[in-house]
Amino acid sequence: MSPTAPALASKLDNLRSSAIRDLLKLTTRAEIISLAGGLPDAQLMPRDRLAAAAEAALTTQGCLQYTESPGWAPLREVLAVRESARLGRQVELAEVFVTHGSQQALALLAEVLLDPGALVVVEDPAYVGALQVFRAAGARIVAVPLDAEGMRTDVLEDLLARGERPAVVHTVSNFHNPGGVTMSRERRVHLAELAQAHGFWVIEDDPYGELWFDRPTPAPVATHSRNVIRLSSASKILSPTLRVGWLIAPESVCRGVELLKQGADLCGSALTQQMAAALLADETWLAGHVAHVRAVYGERAKALVHAVRTRFGDRVRCSDAAGGMFVWADFTDGTDTTALLSHALDAGVAYVPGSAFAVDAGHRSALRMCFTTSDAETLGDAVERLAVAAG
Amino acid sequence: MSPTAPALASKLDNLRSSAIRDLLKLTTRAEIISLAGGLPDAQLMPRDRLAAAAEAALTTQGCLQYTESPGWAPLREVLAVRESARLGRQVELAEVFVTHGSQQALALLAEVLLDPGALVVVEDPAYVGALQVFRAAGARIVAVPLDAEGMRTDVLEDLLARGERPAVVHTVSNFHNPGGVTMSRERRVHLAELAQAHGFWVIEDDPYGELWFDRPTPAPVATHSRNVIRLSSASKILSPTLRVGWLIAPESVCRGVELLKQGADLCGSALTQQMAAALLADETWLAGHVAHVRAVYGERAKALVHAVRTRFGDRVRCSDAAGGMFVWADFTDGTDTTALLSHALDAGVAYVPGSAFAVDAGHRSALRMCFTTSDAETLGDAVERLAVAAG
Repeated sequence: MSPTAPALASKLDNLRSSAIRDLLKLTTRAEIISLAGGLPDAQLMPRDRLAAAAEAALTTQGCLQYTESPGWAPLREVLAVRESARLGRQVELAEVFVTHGSQQALALLAEVLLDPGALVVVEDPAYVGALQVFRAAGARIVAVPLDAEGMRTDVLEDLLARGERPAVVHTVSNFHNPGGVTMSRERRVHLAELAQAHGFWVIEDDPYGELWFDRPTPAPVATHSRNVIRLSSASKILSPTLRVGWLIAPESVCRGVELLKQGADLCGSALTQQMAAALLADETWLAGHVAHVRAVYGERAKALVHAVRTRFGDRVRCSDAAGGMFVWADFTDGTDTTALLSHALDAGVAYVPGSAFAVDAGHRSALRMCFTTSDAETLGDAVERLAVAAG
Repeated sequence: MSPTAPALASKLDNLRSSAIRDLLKLTTRAEIISLAGGLPDAQLMPRDRLAAAAEAALTTQGCLQYTESPGWAPLREVLAVRESARLGRQVELAEVFVTHGSQQALALLAEVLLDPGALVVVEDPAYVGALQVFRAAGARIVAVPLDAEGMRTDVLEDLLARGERPAVVHTVSNFHNPGGVTMSRERRVHLAELAQAHGFWVIEDDPYGELWFDRPTPAPVATHSRNVIRLSSASKILSPTLRVGWLIAPESVCRGVELLKQGADLCGSALTQQMAAALLADETWLAGHVAHVRAVYGERAKALVHAVRTRFGDRVRCSDAAGGMFVWADFTDGTDTTALLSHALDAGVAYVPGSAFAVDAGHRSALRMCFTTSDAETLGDAVERLAVAAG
């Protein structure tokens, strides 16, 4: 008799596999220029520095053992210093918790903060990793649209006025994935005021904030309210292989996350946490390294946006190339980007259709393009191929 | 207005922090000999080989990027070869899933296999990491006692005859933590037959199986039924810093785990997975390395058991030193080991009271002693101090 797995079948329904990952499997053919991925450029990752840090860590036995669930203490100290500078206040060690990438921070926070059926507000289009986590937690999800200034906090305010009581509001405040936009200072203040007035948590998910091209981003939402839990990561500025993300939250929340982390996977890797600490603590080197990544990505982003605007004119409206890893574009003539995709693959270019990021339906004429792993000329070719496919 | 966190308060009640971890915080004073930990000996971990593997991996960019959610494919291939030899059949790649330590395998499996309220059968005394996971999943937990031959499968059979229908039965089949015992071949066959007859999953949690001292363990429970999901780990034979555990399960279960892994933390570290693959693939070296660990741990275990039997005689009954990392002992005169602990700390020795491993109550005269990180002489001193404390 084979085991029954009632939970398995129903959970597979709830957790649609990330459309992006499934697509990636189709777009690895060499002749296709893929703008569909969401990966940082491995060529820009500081391999020599990582190798030196690994070698240094492995000169003693200290990096071989289980480490503490909240993270290796010297890494948490480095992060506290960085985040204190970013937030303009003294961040205490007890507020810093290291996770296995910031995706784990989201997953553990959902468990700590949400009861089944709790209301979570997300942005639309949405970060699919967040949708996946909140759906798995059994949350009720309501979307608030983005515009060029980020989350429409006026729409959130209307929801609150109608009596909706979110437990959590999730925002990718800087260089939104997939929307490309950054929340304005005014909206940040407004969101923080609403959080204070109505007593909800804001999860400020910020993996891209340091990847600005022309000017730094506004101060984090977390500078305006202690109801804001900040998430960030070493994946986009150093390397995803470290699996080092972190959250900054009140001590009581960190204690809840710690209990769940022990059940989830005990602790992170002492080796990769020591490597991350070494590189993040070397401020002078890090500033130069991040400036280089910014310069390369900035050039690529501008080439992509220039090509789209030149080739498509008014037919496509796209986000500015201000930072991060993605450009979001909309066909103003109603072209269905899901239907277009097979033609685009035939023409040799891949992207992610907007519908993959829709909370319910919508974004059927939109697409997300990642500019991090192609040079300017290749990005120009990709846009030309897209134009051929779109006819 | 501060956010309400209703889930937080109730979940903190459900998830008692691991008593072991809390104790570890108290027993790091240099004058205390701690038998309370549950850590492998970092001095025996192959630091030079790990350093060479890290250096080799970091000569290319390939180990810097995000890796696949089920694990780096060449590591899965190495594991498939190892597990094929262990299980005596061809294990397919689709049956192998790499997790962030085997604790994550347990946590993801609980999500995939259990609906809230589902029945889970565990062994008593229990592995606390499993209790934590199953409690967090909202399972109803029923315990079956251990004896010198492992899980009392006759008691499980009685439960089934009374109409209980477990979704999952969890066993640490080899060198039980904390019980020290290994399930006999007859019990393995019986457990597999019950799983087949009643259609439940067995999770065979086997991190210690290779650490036998005098003779290898019986063939895994998984050799007797495809209803058995096997878990193991590189933590005890190589190093916990790799955070490499794995599960062997039917492809449908692996697919469910993959969807949950994407939401939980996307993927593991390409770097540490490449390091693990390099060391696990070098079979000749690995055989010698594991033989050395066995020899050292075996000598320590025998010294501990000898000291306990010599010093306490009939007053304490303890498990054989046959493998793994732990000895389980029982005061036959009813000494309360929780009350004894403060006297033991005063005398300069730490252990974990049996009650920490009880599913409901019980084991009040028992204690778990870890022999991995002290030499034979120190273990003799520890037992002497324990005898002083016990009066």
